[in-house]
Parts: sequence; structure tokens; C-alpha cells
Amino acid sequence: MGRVKEPRWLNDDEQHTWRAFLNASQLLLDQLDRELQRDADMPHAYFTILVALSESPGGRLRMGELAELTWSSASRLSHAVTRLEQRGWVRRAECDSDKRGHVAEITDEGMRVLKSAAAGHVDGVRAHLFDLLTEAQVGQLREISETVMEHLAEHHPAAVRRARTTG
Amino acid sequence: MGRVKEPRWLNDDEQHTWRAFLNASQLLLDQLDRELQRDADMPHAYFTILVALSESPGGRLRMGELAELTWSSASRLSHAVTRLEQRGWVRRAECDSDKRGHVAEITDEGMRVLKSAAAGHVDGVRAHLFDLLTEAQVGQLREISETVMEHLAEHHPAAVRRARTTG
Repeated sequence: MGRVKEPRWLNDDEQHTWRAFLNASQLLLDQLDRELQRDADMPHAYFTILVALSESPGGRLRMGELAELTWSSASRLSHAVTRLEQRGWVRRAECDSDKRGHVAEITDEGMRVLKSAAAGHVDGVRAHLFDLLTEAQVGQLREISETVMEHLAEHHPAAVRRARTTG
Repeated sequence: MGRVKEPRWLNDDEQHTWRAFLNASQLLLDQLDRELQRDADMPHAYFTILVALSESPGGRLRMGELAELTWSSASRLSHAVTRLEQRGWVRRAECDSDKRGHVAEITDEGMRVLKSAAAGHVDGVRAHLFDLLTEAQVGQLREISETVMEHLAEHHPAAVRRARTTG
């Protein structure tokens, strides 16, 4: 057994950065979520699912692929897709090549709703993020985010599963 | 009635930045949440509540103040505090100066659990964020986050309510 290591506590500057980042990202997601609820009657999570489907060939994805693209757990995604089905924005189908693999498909009505919601949503993303930043800061945010994203993708259960099944 | 304005869609660079930021912040919060669940048997939201209480005089805050500090809705916070009470980490009390205003107070056991959880949590915050960034990037992230945070605090219902009641 090793000796107990003293944790490397954050210094003041790191502490301020960490809290500012936590607050900013939570406030931003909450604000966009409230605006989507108010203007398009859907939470941000539904919007993300509809975007992922709309960008896929034929507007359809296997549930497993959709979970990976939206970084969602299988159970959370399944629940959301059921709600989207009830609204007529998504339908479930069977996959031609693999009957066991269930597929989610965006409907025409889902595409219409998504287009309408996207117009207001992009205004919010501009007003609450891009309009506040200089061009240099947009570049900085992209580099920082990509670094963190690439590091964490390796830790994500879906990424781990994906690596195993394709290895 | 004005003419319908064409939305100012994101250009490719903004689109990549936005998606990277969304993915990075969601993956980071999910990862830290999983680690806190695994190591300390609590979600990140509970940790945030315990930190806010532990840093307040006497380890206590009115529920309204606690909601504002954790950017939480009253109902979401009340639910979490009930769970924390059941674990013996927080107790509810009445406020001396205002019997109607209920107060949450961290218990000795809550302080013990928080200290133990914080040691592992800070390792996660370092491993998944600060260790990945240069010193310059830490400064950039702080400036970007503070800009977004200050802008959005004005939109937040709690901030609006706070401004009204102190006006």
C-alpha cells in the first residue's frame, strides 16, 4: 500500500476558471433549453436528436449510433425517442440488414418542426455566445473544446464500446 | 408586421466551435458525474450544494440563496435537499429572523463526506481539464467563461428576481 497522496488542490486562478466555466456552460445550456421550450416546445436534448437524424442518410440511424452521436445512454435515448414518436416527429423501424437492430427515422413533420426550431435556436446561440466573443476567442474556444472532447471521448462508455467492437 | 428575417446561420468555423463546445462540456460534466457517483456515491449536483453550504457562514443558507448560488430551480433544489437530508448530510432548519424562510445546513457528516469526495474530484478536474491545457489556454477559458457568465446571469430567472427584490 502506498502512502496517502495529498490532493493537488486548485490554485486561486484555476478555481476561478473552473467555477466560471461550470457556471457559463450550465447557464448557457439552461438558457438555450428554456428558449427552445418557449419557442418550439422541446428541450435541447430533443433538438440534438432531431439534428443527428436529419443529417444522416435517409434521415435514419440505428439506436446505438444515435446514442453515440448524442453522447446519450441507451435508456435516456430510448425514453426521448418514445416521446418524439408520440409527437409524430420520429418513427421507429427495423433495420433491413439486421432485424434486431432498431432504427429511428425522422418524419416529414419532424423535419418541418426542426427547421422552424433551428431558426430561433441559432439566434440564441449567437446572442448568448458568438456575439459576445472576438474572432480570436472563437478560435481559442474551439481549440480548448476539441482538446477536451478528444481526451474525454476515450473515456466515454460508448467510445470504449465502439473501440472494442471495431477492434 | 415586419418582413421575415433570414436566420444568421453559423458558418463552418462557428458550427465546429459550437459542436465542440457542446460535446466537451457535456462529456466533461458526465465524466465528473460518473466519477463522483463511483467514488463518493453522489451526483455532481449534490457535490455543488454541499460546497455552497460549506463555504457559507455557519454552513447554512436560505433555500432561495442556495438556489441562486447553484443556479437551480426551487423545485429541483428542494428535491435534492430532501435526498441529502435522508443521507444525513444536510438538515433543514428555520431562519431566526424569518420563520417562513427555510434554511439548509450542512451536518458534520456532510462536511466529512464532502472533504473525502473533494480530494478525488479535484484529481478528475485536473486530469480532464487543467492538465490538458497550457497556462495561456487556462487564461483564455477564464475570460471566455466570465464573459458568457456575466451576460447570462442577467437572463437567469433567479438573477432577475434578485435584481427586483433588491431594487
